[in-house]
Amino acid sequence: MKEIKSWIDIPKNHDFSIYNIPFGVFYTNNQISTARVGAALGDNVIDLCRLFNLGYLTDIVGLKAEHFDNNKLNEFLSLGNKTCNGVRYAIQELFSDLNSKLKKHPEHLETILIPTHSVKMLLPIQVKDYVDFYSSLDHATNVGKMFRDEKNPLLPNWKHIPIGYHGRSSSIIVGGTNFKRPKGQLSLADANSPIFGPTKQLDFELEMAFITSKQNEMGEMISPDQSSDFIFGLALFNDWSARDIQRWEYVPLGPFLGKSFASSLSPWVVSLEALAPFSLPAQDKDVSELKYLQCKKNGLFDIQLEIYLQSDKMKEPFLISSTNYKYMYWNLFQQLAHMTSNGSPVSIGDVYASGTISGPLPNSYGSMLELAWKGTKPITLPDGSTRSFIEDGDTILFRGFAIKGDVRIGFGELSAKVLPC
Amino acid sequence: MKEIKSWIDIPKNHDFSIYNIPFGVFYTNNQISTARVGAALGDNVIDLCRLFNLGYLTDIVGLKAEHFDNNKLNEFLSLGNKTCNGVRYAIQELFSDLNSKLKKHPEHLETILIPTHSVKMLLPIQVKDYVDFYSSLDHATNVGKMFRDEKNPLLPNWKHIPIGYHGRSSSIIVGGTNFKRPKGQLSLADANSPIFGPTKQLDFELEMAFITSKQNEMGEMISPDQSSDFIFGLALFNDWSARDIQRWEYVPLGPFLGKSFASSLSPWVVSLEALAPFSLPAQDKDVSELKYLQCKKNGLFDIQLEIYLQSDKMKEPFLISSTNYKYMYWNLFQQLAHMTSNGSPVSIGDVYASGTISGPLPNSYGSMLELAWKGTKPITLPDGSTRSFIEDGDTILFRGFAIKGDVRIGFGELSAKVLPC
Repeated sequence: MKEIKSWIDIPKNHDFSIYNIPFGVFYTNNQISTARVGAALGDNVIDLCRLFNLGYLTDIVGLKAEHFDNNKLNEFLSLGNKTCNGVRYAIQELFSDLNSKLKKHPEHLETILIPTHSVKMLLPIQVKDYVDFYSSLDHATNVGKMFRDEKNPLLPNWKHIPIGYHGRSSSIIVGGTNFKRPKGQLSLADANSPIFGPTKQLDFELEMAFITSKQNEMGEMISPDQSSDFIFGLALFNDWSARDIQRWEYVPLGPFLGKSFASSLSPWVVSLEALAPFSLPAQDKDVSELKYLQCKKNGLFDIQLEIYLQSDKMKEPFLISSTNYKYMYWNLFQQLAHMTSNGSPVSIGDVYASGTISGPLPNSYGSMLELAWKGTKPITLPDGSTRSFIEDGDTILFRGFAIKGDVRIGFGELSAKVLPC
Repeated sequence: MKEIKSWIDIPKNHDFSIYNIPFGVFYTNNQISTARVGAALGDNVIDLCRLFNLGYLTDIVGLKAEHFDNNKLNEFLSLGNKTCNGVRYAIQELFSDLNSKLKKHPEHLETILIPTHSVKMLLPIQVKDYVDFYSSLDHATNVGKMFRDEKNPLLPNWKHIPIGYHGRSSSIIVGGTNFKRPKGQLSLADANSPIFGPTKQLDFELEMAFITSKQNEMGEMISPDQSSDFIFGLALFNDWSARDIQRWEYVPLGPFLGKSFASSLSPWVVSLEALAPFSLPAQDKDVSELKYLQCKKNGLFDIQLEIYLQSDKMKEPFLISSTNYKYMYWNLFQQLAHMTSNGSPVSIGDVYASGTISGPLPNSYGSMLELAWKGTKPITLPDGSTRSFIEDGDTILFRGFAIKGDVRIGFGELSAKVLPC
């Protein structure tokens, strides 16, 4: 990887290094009406509206102020990956040691760089369709062991199909947005008929989500090796789940209200281009893939993922699991290829979540259901309390980052606190 | 019902009588760029842009030209049901015998009324979230008898929950749009592993869909008796299904690619207000409803529904089933209440489909799966051929209408032809 040094101060090991340049939507002065597109660099947000209006991005064909003076990334993404990555490269260049164009204008810099602590973030995109996959072998195996058959945990279709389902777009919230514990129908073991009340089994699911930047025609399949043209980047995703609501409702049509109360997406979208140095080839599989799912490109990514829990009584978040995006069985390119294999159209701003990402070891599982093994192995927290599921006042925080030598590219944090209902 | 006579010629028993006034989006001269909002009246489309610009709707507070000069109904619906129905009443009044304001301006009439045969229709709304329910008792019972247990066909949750799932918004197409037979993974009985190829079991599902016109706050439940404030109206809906793709993929997360290739929505949205005279009280139930689902309002509607099939060789559509929207077990208000019971937000332009509507008799079933009883009782068509599922070149056409005395309110037609892939 080519070394890039910057003339501005970026703390070492920062998620938003000069190698990253993720995009998001921020607002200032607590006024949502000021929302506009920015890029993160160290502890600052680059105001791309101002950067553009000051003439620093004029070499990039097709860019207009309205792409940045916008409360969502959809219009920016609609320019296509080549142009969006062109903006990313232009920013890297402007802030690199080899370039003094911006450096020599401190009066510009002052208006372009905004300290991160003084901005608030919005959901980066207007979400079109939202799909949640189920593509981690260890997660599917764990669920199968707990609820189906310890010796034969996987369903017959699992190694043939990247299983997925459509979820609700309207309840996707940006990281930092807290939400109330949802209510729903619960079928309790000691009752003859279901009751309606707050979920007793609230859980998180650690996932990564990819975001699309290109449409296909209805009826047009996208192959795994074409998929990267349609995907701009990734973010952290928490597919909050009410296990008891889900268990009672999900047969035969799948999860519905057990999921649709809230799903959290991190505010900064990290490009596939930035993540390319961390890609990995596929692992060998014991079941052969159908041709439409075969992928020559590296589709796995070495992204370390961490889950923290902080109760109201705790002073700092406590690490409860460490996993990695490289543990996916079906990669993101295969997921998109499968989704379009029936001719279904992709929109700009679709969100495709990976499904819970569990690793092979008990301390690398991606949900509380698995970490506490269906309540049989509760987790003990530093405040002395135990958890089988998430309690009111608990904050769940995800971190994700890729490291190679001195280069670090991260996703920042994704957190949300559960409020009493 | 108060009798309304019109000074313009509307054929007797027309779906788009003066009692109806449904809204849609049309374009002229084959140019999609001309798309704008209209209302149907007999064999004409009323150009609401021109009607507004000529000053005929100026009494209605909040209306602007941009609500009609628009290629979707979402902005119009965002005005709220009271205003949208105000437009409907204003149109009824302008065209009633008792009013000569428009009648005495033939030069205006000439520009306002456009013959239906000279326009094309677009999808009436930009679809936000799309949910498909499963709320017909006869349909759920038939499916249970075929695939589970003849004597105990219903799952334990069915009479407690309006079962539903999220579907794909991007593949909802307006009536009249043909589509290619989808491909997908099929697990054939005589093969060791699945193959990828065209579905062999393409089916329709006769449904009605309601469309929302008001947002709630995240976390705010909507009760069944509040639901009518959030629903503007209904349209016909065909939830096309590839049974073989669906059967192999749907465990455990529900239908996905077996549905997401195409769903057809009829172009004219009929208001709840227009349908009010055809509402019916609930039927008695043997299982009591949880309080959050109890509905005092009449939530069933006596809307006759017909399914026709026309093969490439046939000269006209052939009636294969007649059913009725009144056969719903869970009504539309209960469906919306259930959907928001976990606090999930409703958007303006959501589509909620009823699920297949089957009646109690074999000639009133809402899918080919049921009509041909899983292929064991193929239907014979007038061209001598038989059908267990839908073949290439087949057009499926739905009609829906409500009749009381001389008053008829209908949905027009919903059709689509299956093309070879």
